[in-house]
Amino acid sequence: MIEDVNKQIELIKRGTVEIISEEELIKKLENSLKNKIPLKVKAGFDPTAPDLHLGHLVLLNKLRQFQELGHKVYFLIGDFTGMIGDPSGLSETRKPLTKEEVLKNATTYKKQVFKVLSPSATEVVFNSQWMDKMTSEEMLRLCGKYTVARMLERDDFRKRFKEGKAIGIHEFIYPLIQGYDSVVLKVDIELGGTDQKFNLLVGRDLQREYGQAPQVVITLPLLEGLDGVRKMSKSYNNYVALEDPPSEMFGKIMSISDTLMIKYYELLTSEDLDNIKSLHPMEAKKRLAEYFVERFHGKEEAIKARKEFEKVFSLRQGIPENIPEYNARGETKRWLPHILTKAGITKSNREAIQLIKEGAVEIDGEKVYNINAEIGTGIVSVIRIGKKRFLKVIS
Amino acid sequence: MIEDVNKQIELIKRGTVEIISEEELIKKLENSLKNKIPLKVKAGFDPTAPDLHLGHLVLLNKLRQFQELGHKVYFLIGDFTGMIGDPSGLSETRKPLTKEEVLKNATTYKKQVFKVLSPSATEVVFNSQWMDKMTSEEMLRLCGKYTVARMLERDDFRKRFKEGKAIGIHEFIYPLIQGYDSVVLKVDIELGGTDQKFNLLVGRDLQREYGQAPQVVITLPLLEGLDGVRKMSKSYNNYVALEDPPSEMFGKIMSISDTLMIKYYELLTSEDLDNIKSLHPMEAKKRLAEYFVERFHGKEEAIKARKEFEKVFSLRQGIPENIPEYNARGETKRWLPHILTKAGITKSNREAIQLIKEGAVEIDGEKVYNINAEIGTGIVSVIRIGKKRFLKVIS
Repeated sequence: MIEDVNKQIELIKRGTVEIISEEELIKKLENSLKNKIPLKVKAGFDPTAPDLHLGHLVLLNKLRQFQELGHKVYFLIGDFTGMIGDPSGLSETRKPLTKEEVLKNATTYKKQVFKVLSPSATEVVFNSQWMDKMTSEEMLRLCGKYTVARMLERDDFRKRFKEGKAIGIHEFIYPLIQGYDSVVLKVDIELGGTDQKFNLLVGRDLQREYGQAPQVVITLPLLEGLDGVRKMSKSYNNYVALEDPPSEMFGKIMSISDTLMIKYYELLTSEDLDNIKSLHPMEAKKRLAEYFVERFHGKEEAIKARKEFEKVFSLRQGIPENIPEYNARGETKRWLPHILTKAGITKSNREAIQLIKEGAVEIDGEKVYNINAEIGTGIVSVIRIGKKRFLKVIS
Repeated sequence: MIEDVNKQIELIKRGTVEIISEEELIKKLENSLKNKIPLKVKAGFDPTAPDLHLGHLVLLNKLRQFQELGHKVYFLIGDFTGMIGDPSGLSETRKPLTKEEVLKNATTYKKQVFKVLSPSATEVVFNSQWMDKMTSEEMLRLCGKYTVARMLERDDFRKRFKEGKAIGIHEFIYPLIQGYDSVVLKVDIELGGTDQKFNLLVGRDLQREYGQAPQVVITLPLLEGLDGVRKMSKSYNNYVALEDPPSEMFGKIMSISDTLMIKYYELLTSEDLDNIKSLHPMEAKKRLAEYFVERFHGKEEAIKARKEFEKVFSLRQGIPENIPEYNARGETKRWLPHILTKAGITKSNREAIQLIKEGAVEIDGEKVYNINAEIGTGIVSVIRIGKKRFLKVIS
């Protein structure tokens, strides 16, 4: 625990987008030091997606930092709304979950999240614990704390409203529940991505309404996915999962652009960026890939993954520079003949099968004989057919 | 019970503004006759205002008619929301009521309402019976049945939204609760004033969502109050209460305009309007006043009230035509000196008191000696001071 509040603030501020407000944060930190009571730091997680990825790591790292500064993390799983889903059917992603599914997902969460967080300074809570008991009367009172106009200030609501797209009334209640969670837990600080800013501020408002000191809101940048364009998300299939096996994790990092690599360094590590920029990009990227593999699988696996990558890479030497590329990310059918034909390098699945049987197909220098072979995910492979046909598959 | 559906429809239609839809109503009436099952006819009442007045009578008469046709009335008291009030503090009229107040009001309701409705064909229900048991989860599901945009189609919401006036999110839920009441009671028909049309239609939508046949919605005209301008309402103090004493009731009716008298005949009685128009307006008005007093206090009281009125009226003969008028309706301070001074006929309360003491003040031909006298409500009086000063007070 660092006794100097200025030092704490400096550490906390690093990598954040906004702190509302810094002044309140300083006061809370001072009180915490004076009274020797750790601050309660909350972050909410969706009960539907237990596959944590580097996008979550921005948040988890910051939570971990609070733990190292002596504070307590409330890892909140929003299972109450997750078990309801979307009764209006407006959203396809909001399929209701059963209690069993939520608990299963929570177990998976814990397994993954404790690779970053310290279990002893973490409390995993479910908002169904208090929301299941809330009466309809209490919910109406909660709804009375906020106006329609203020809710429509939320960017996505305003946009949908303007475009004449349906917003279910229950959707107006979800931010109130998120805010009410902060009231119940008497949270001091809530963390979230920049896209969560509105909901986090609702928490401040509600805490004031319920006579509590408002939580400090800290927003963190959203991490772009492997494509360098959209935010990292399972639904865009552009993510590196914390549970990805070493070689896949390494390969995925090696596939990103140099610009994105610098961003990942900035948001996910504490490396000095000037140092990194002085390295050859290829070397810098390998170190970044090694860093993640080491963090989630240990040093040995990291060294192994690097060696493997380098072996495959050297095999690729002698392959012409401008070979056709095929991006198979997002493709669910990963059967090799299908990919080859879709990429236009074979005329039909039948031709592809014939070539595999003849031993004419190599992936990364190794012959493939299995006609049922499937392309992996999160890697870049070079496929060679005969002497002249090449295809780089990004997947 | 009338066996002819066409005859029933003809009776039901009289005096209504809209029936949604007549076709569905015919089917429901036919089924009811065929299966000998009375239809369930619902009307909702506010738990806060137990003082029923002629404005309610439009609705009560129609309910009574359904009872005479063999159907069953659900007199619903919306106590659930009444006990919550307006947690946002947006509305001053929505002060929360206690369980005791609601029950007390219900007793008063019953006493008044059974002057019109038949107790044996009426069920008084409170929506707290099911709403108190509703979980927050069920309420969220209910909210999922409706969109923000549809709710903002309600005239008053749209207007407030446009004008930047606050709408609490809980206010969006109240129409859903009203509609849900119809779902719980499996209502066939719901009646309400034209200002209730939106809420009544929500009931239709929700019944469909819950797999029921949608209720037929019947809207009835809003009755103008004694001022002939605004709708009759306790808060405008322009009403004739069903419980008003005979002479007050008679006097209030005598104070309305001739145009308004015709409207009251049209909406509240089954008199032939051509007959009425052929009478002298003064006679027509007396008959209307007599009709109401007879209905709520009996024939004897009606005759007595008429005689009394005529006596006071004849005393007024000899009073000049164009004397000043003072409208004291809505005035809460009814102290005679105050009224006289406010009307400008005395210079100060002190002067007024002095004149009363001297025996110079008469109300409707009778001298007043009590300096603490107060003006009644719902009557028209002529005040005379000395020989030349006159004031007509409408109150």
